[in-house]
Amino acid sequence: MTKSKPKILVTNDDGITARGIRTLIKEMCKLGDVYVVAPDKPQSGKGHAITIDAILELKPQKVDGDAIKEISCTGTPADCVKLAINEVLDTKPDLCVSGINHGSNSSISVIYSGTMSAAIEAGIEGIPSIGFSLCDYSKDADFSAAKFYVRKIAKEVLQNGLPDGVVLNVNFPKISKSPYKGIKVCRQARANWREKFDKRVNPLGKEYFWLTGEFENLDSGEDTDEYWLAQNYISLVPIQFDLTAHHMIQKLNNWSLNE
Amino acid sequence: MTKSKPKILVTNDDGITARGIRTLIKEMCKLGDVYVVAPDKPQSGKGHAITIDAILELKPQKVDGDAIKEISCTGTPADCVKLAINEVLDTKPDLCVSGINHGSNSSISVIYSGTMSAAIEAGIEGIPSIGFSLCDYSKDADFSAAKFYVRKIAKEVLQNGLPDGVVLNVNFPKISKSPYKGIKVCRQARANWREKFDKRVNPLGKEYFWLTGEFENLDSGEDTDEYWLAQNYISLVPIQFDLTAHHMIQKLNNWSLNE
Repeated sequence: MTKSKPKILVTNDDGITARGIRTLIKEMCKLGDVYVVAPDKPQSGKGHAITIDAILELKPQKVDGDAIKEISCTGTPADCVKLAINEVLDTKPDLCVSGINHGSNSSISVIYSGTMSAAIEAGIEGIPSIGFSLCDYSKDADFSAAKFYVRKIAKEVLQNGLPDGVVLNVNFPKISKSPYKGIKVCRQARANWREKFDKRVNPLGKEYFWLTGEFENLDSGEDTDEYWLAQNYISLVPIQFDLTAHHMIQKLNNWSLNE
Repeated sequence: MTKSKPKILVTNDDGITARGIRTLIKEMCKLGDVYVVAPDKPQSGKGHAITIDAILELKPQKVDGDAIKEISCTGTPADCVKLAINEVLDTKPDLCVSGINHGSNSSISVIYSGTMSAAIEAGIEGIPSIGFSLCDYSKDADFSAAKFYVRKIAKEVLQNGLPDGVVLNVNFPKISKSPYKGIKVCRQARANWREKFDKRVNPLGKEYFWLTGEFENLDSGEDTDEYWLAQNYISLVPIQFDLTAHHMIQKLNNWSLNE
């Protein structure tokens, strides 16, 4: 009996037609049987939103290439993963990959990221899972150099598995003239988005705001994702969804909470 | 010169008129100068969503009680905190409190919670911050027994501060006949929502889904929030937004990522 090919779920937050997910599907088809369940429209910045007050719809899409099935979903990235596992796939996939996101999900952006929430949702379900992002927001972003490493990292995860509770957050530097120097396993930098709201007035005279902002790295460590991305390395941060700040438990026990 | 009263930002995810936030505002007015910026409609399950593809509006509300200002916002809980800090308040608040949520945000629910995303957003901005939730989804949920503890925990945070990167997640058991036994500092249980999609057909014959599910605690530890809530204790989990799984870094360095 030959070992069956691994079953791979592919999703993203930029929507099923985005160039990033098309690249990811193509690469994953070289490694296994690919099922795509992805949002029918862009869902960037949706964090770990789920849809509890509205209905969800699935729509089969024309399969472009070697995927087994492609389905678009009206919900968020986390909804896509929940529906894929419960309504589309017969058995849990061996791997879930999300992306390749058009834009960075390094450091604090992991918190706001729909791409990463899909990967985390799969992790919560016990599925080895990776989010991929390219630090380039442009429409014509060049995903070509990421392909080799996407396959490489996915193969390693299929081979080694991941412990319960751990998901990988992989970011690729924007393509420069020189090739990527390699992959660095690192920690999430302590960084912020420094908001600047753009205040405007509508034709009826009413004020409104657009959220804009600038990224600010507050972390001078040489072991962070931001540090290595700036050196033209691919950053790989293992993340967890146990948010407990274990180091604080003893300190809080010294507070007068029960007096 | 007398020390000025602490400045407290109050927000939530159930919307500015919810009974939980009205209780929280009333209790916070006993401790400091209260500014309210909260969603104009329910935003449950919105996770750490932010609004990047639509406009945001603020609307002053009639102040009910002793708050300095009350403002509703068209955005998500995280948007409310960003706008409060950047457009409503002159200086950063000394404390941000979010809730009291109508429903549990213990264990894995912290990931999906709008209440906790508001608290985390304030934490990212360096503001000591607490999310409060009552494990009772009913419209007539009884917040009375929580009041004393909400003030107690807020006072402790105002006095002791919180280290950078740490936010508190406080859950109150549903009111039973016996009084709360006290506060337990604990860790986030490893639990899941076991989804069950309710599949229906619309009048045009098209299938759609409602997300439903059952909570499943996979964690038999006696140091978790779920364990202590079940014993009628208030759970207090220190959480962090550095998601790095630090224990995995060395293991991943043993993979063949760069070969």
